[in-house]
Amino acid sequence: MANVLEIIPLGGIGEFGMNCTLMRYGDEMLILDAGMGFPEENVYGVDVCIPDFEILEQYRNDITAIILTHGHEDHLGALPYVLKKINVPVYASHFTLGLAESKLEEHGLLGDVLLHRVEPRDVVTLGSFVIEFIRASHSLVDCFHLAIKTPVGTIIHTGDYKVDETPVIGEPIDLRTLRRYGQEGVLALLSDSTNATVPGRTPSERAVIPAFEEIFTEAEGRIIVAAFASSIHRLQIVFDVAQQFNRRVCVLGRSMQKNVDIGERLGYLDIHDGMLVSINEAKQLADHEICFLITGSQAEPRAALYQMATQVYKGLTIEEGDTVVLSARIIPGNERAISKLIGFIYKRGANIIEEKRRLIHVSGHASQDDIRIMTEAVRPKFVVPIHGEYRMLFRHKEFVKNHLGFPEERIVLIENGDVLELDGERAAVVDKREIKRTFIDDSGFEEIEYDTVRERKKMAYEGIVTLLLTINRNTGELQGKPQIVAQGVRGFPSAKANGGQASPPADGAILKDAEQTVSAAITGASRQTFEDASLLKEHVRLELKRFIQKETGARPVIVPVIQEI
Amino acid sequence: MANVLEIIPLGGIGEFGMNCTLMRYGDEMLILDAGMGFPEENVYGVDVCIPDFEILEQYRNDITAIILTHGHEDHLGALPYVLKKINVPVYASHFTLGLAESKLEEHGLLGDVLLHRVEPRDVVTLGSFVIEFIRASHSLVDCFHLAIKTPVGTIIHTGDYKVDETPVIGEPIDLRTLRRYGQEGVLALLSDSTNATVPGRTPSERAVIPAFEEIFTEAEGRIIVAAFASSIHRLQIVFDVAQQFNRRVCVLGRSMQKNVDIGERLGYLDIHDGMLVSINEAKQLADHEICFLITGSQAEPRAALYQMATQVYKGLTIEEGDTVVLSARIIPGNERAISKLIGFIYKRGANIIEEKRRLIHVSGHASQDDIRIMTEAVRPKFVVPIHGEYRMLFRHKEFVKNHLGFPEERIVLIENGDVLELDGERAAVVDKREIKRTFIDDSGFEEIEYDTVRERKKMAYEGIVTLLLTINRNTGELQGKPQIVAQGVRGFPSAKANGGQASPPADGAILKDAEQTVSAAITGASRQTFEDASLLKEHVRLELKRFIQKETGARPVIVPVIQEI
Repeated sequence: MANVLEIIPLGGIGEFGMNCTLMRYGDEMLILDAGMGFPEENVYGVDVCIPDFEILEQYRNDITAIILTHGHEDHLGALPYVLKKINVPVYASHFTLGLAESKLEEHGLLGDVLLHRVEPRDVVTLGSFVIEFIRASHSLVDCFHLAIKTPVGTIIHTGDYKVDETPVIGEPIDLRTLRRYGQEGVLALLSDSTNATVPGRTPSERAVIPAFEEIFTEAEGRIIVAAFASSIHRLQIVFDVAQQFNRRVCVLGRSMQKNVDIGERLGYLDIHDGMLVSINEAKQLADHEICFLITGSQAEPRAALYQMATQVYKGLTIEEGDTVVLSARIIPGNERAISKLIGFIYKRGANIIEEKRRLIHVSGHASQDDIRIMTEAVRPKFVVPIHGEYRMLFRHKEFVKNHLGFPEERIVLIENGDVLELDGERAAVVDKREIKRTFIDDSGFEEIEYDTVRERKKMAYEGIVTLLLTINRNTGELQGKPQIVAQGVRGFPSAKANGGQASPPADGAILKDAEQTVSAAITGASRQTFEDASLLKEHVRLELKRFIQKETGARPVIVPVIQEI
Repeated sequence: MANVLEIIPLGGIGEFGMNCTLMRYGDEMLILDAGMGFPEENVYGVDVCIPDFEILEQYRNDITAIILTHGHEDHLGALPYVLKKINVPVYASHFTLGLAESKLEEHGLLGDVLLHRVEPRDVVTLGSFVIEFIRASHSLVDCFHLAIKTPVGTIIHTGDYKVDETPVIGEPIDLRTLRRYGQEGVLALLSDSTNATVPGRTPSERAVIPAFEEIFTEAEGRIIVAAFASSIHRLQIVFDVAQQFNRRVCVLGRSMQKNVDIGERLGYLDIHDGMLVSINEAKQLADHEICFLITGSQAEPRAALYQMATQVYKGLTIEEGDTVVLSARIIPGNERAISKLIGFIYKRGANIIEEKRRLIHVSGHASQDDIRIMTEAVRPKFVVPIHGEYRMLFRHKEFVKNHLGFPEERIVLIENGDVLELDGERAAVVDKREIKRTFIDDSGFEEIEYDTVRERKKMAYEGIVTLLLTINRNTGELQGKPQIVAQGVRGFPSAKANGGQASPPADGAILKDAEQTVSAAITGASRQTFEDASLLKEHVRLELKRFIQKETGARPVIVPVIQEI
């Protein structure tokens, strides 16, 4: 084991989100990114998910640092949870640390962690690892590729990127340094697969400027731009074009306000004096003098856009004459909600500019020809597609193989939990660790156990019946009636959740029959069953289950409880 | 009221699915289509939804017939539910009736309803309404436009359509008859908006043949085509191309087998003798001799494709060398699941042909230039966009106004429940009826009440706590401990749903504290509270709620129950 490098992805492979990778040599380990994901379990009260960091326990004494490529939630969002487990130094860019600090503060961790700010071209030596931070271009600012020299060879981790030679903010991608590593020899390229299915080049962040200028030229009323709060280049464009067309900008929505604040404070956003106005100032301006920059491009019900479209948000509603610009892609899964939201906005009589109709959004991720440029610059021995669903990873492999002539045996497809071992010559998955997801209730940053979510799923599907039997401890007799308390069961009266009703509802005939079924089951139970609480519970549960299924066809969760008095 | 026509959409306007429209003149009413929808509430055990047909009660004596434009579920699926309420004659095409009969048989209704088979150009007089059935082209076969002559003028209802001059099966769209009505004068055109956002013409059903021929030329292993079972033209193409390339076809998946059976039996599908093989015969054939035609293009977990991709389905799995053709569009909401499914298929080493990479799917709905052709043929006084989300309806209006120069005041946007009144000159929404959706549990064709679904939603989000107090009827004292039974509550031990455990789990400290909180609340209750069961329940519920929220941050549903013994 001494002369090998291990790469273990904890998340981000075969899924969107939760990007996090362990890199280990001997008894030294780095954590590359610590991202969160947005699971489909949100109807079960799960707001976000993170990788199960239990695996870190066994490496507790080996982990030397957390390195962040950039500040998007799918790379940064799990940072507080990792740090609560293992408090090690964090290395990240100026802007990424700005976002990280705000997050750590929310978790009450800010004073307790060591944050190292690094600049592009900085080289940091951490034991056997020598890490150079290389300027990447992406939809966010201040993003890095990582070049990690290890005893078995150099690993390039692209982070998120596209090849943008004309970003709005900051310098272009540092291809020169990537090429230098390529000339020196790169063992493996861990490379963003998000857009590996998309032919051609990803347009520069600047590409949306003409469409914004057109929109600002045409609009006579208010302009409302909804964008991702983290699309810092995009926000700068909105400020610039607003300036050009003599409009002030009012920023609405918590994350948008936070990011504009951080972006301006750290010097990334260049906002003219007097450009930013409060909501009250905005209301005083004429319609052609104002632009709202807001959250909610994904039709999130609590975000500014949805609120303005469906009711009154801080005294504002979308009205006839407004122009609403949806300057964001549709995240898969949100199509229905966004289409509905657009309907609401049309109903208000506003004009809507969608991505499909004008170039008002560009991706931050490498398309196939960006991947070509990256791969040809870095000239790695092995290509390891990361960051994407399997579909993208496979298409990444297919592209590199078929269009770049890269030998198939040197393209390594891995999965979360795979232990990829590299010795300088060979790359092979030698082990598989089980990495679950941890569900988080974001309101209190609390974990929600798997079992809790599983129970919620079951109840959600067919409801629940709680069955309480009160048994006299001395006589062993049933006291009173069996208490049957149903919620969400089809064809079965529900107990009122909010009290206020003393007796079962009038349509309680089936409830009485159910009680009789249970009573009869108890009467008919053998002595042995009756004396063993768990046997008795299972007996009555099955009888009640059969009764309900026969009478209504429903198969709710049934929870039998015995009370002895 | 005597000289006006009322049009009342019960579904399909502002949503996909549940297409159903009432048309009334005096005391005569028609029901045009009776479709089901597929709601987002499926995690709450809701399989499908239909319009709430309660509104039909008041027209019970007026309704003369149900007219079906075609056999897609979003036009036909609610038919059994309507007929259970109001048993009136049904008019539909040969193929549509084939599908309807199969559905009515499942509901045990087949013997009890009157089904009238109509041919294109047939004219049926139903009181004041004279209905001509006009051949439409669509992804399904044997579809109709309806021309309904009424005392105030002629209404053209397009049903679903595109302008396909070279369908695979049957005759092209009958534009000549539509133009004849246009010349005679059409009062209103109720027109499909599904693809109103799509520029250009929708390609003919034939357009996918070249891509299928290429795929069959290239594939050396087995070919697996997943398509909508209702895309009858597409199925014919698969049979034709398979014949051409000397492959047999094995049909898998219940709805696919049903539709192939109906299509062949009624003479719509032309399948060569010996072409269809059973699954056992298929297994005997060499890989290059077989094509599977299967369900599951939307990644439905129980459908054939998902099963073959993730496990063994009737002895079959997807393997290296297979070519999987996803010959269907992605229905909004299914993107994530389909992308995951594609990942599974890639992992099996199979090749996948997706819609985006080759022309293997065409829509059945009119794009903008089809809408142009339809509108110019019919030359209506009023255009009423139907069939689509608001976004599509509004874009339909925008297109007709901006590109066809149609006067805005003669484009009427309506919503479900609107009563659109036409008197020959004027078209105006004069009333608004509240039309809810009815949720259906498809396993037993049973309705699921709104309240039931609402309860399931609440429990799904934060779990449920049932609180049982046993009170001695004579002394008024609490007997035993308060019984607290939790399911799906974060940070709170759950009672076992399947019995088997007699006492609370070891981490039950919080449970004991909760019991003490409730006991203390009872002890501290005023005499008045104690003597009124509903006051007492509300009192203990609030105390328990506060306790749980303080200790865990969770806010579950709490159901207090009092038992007197």
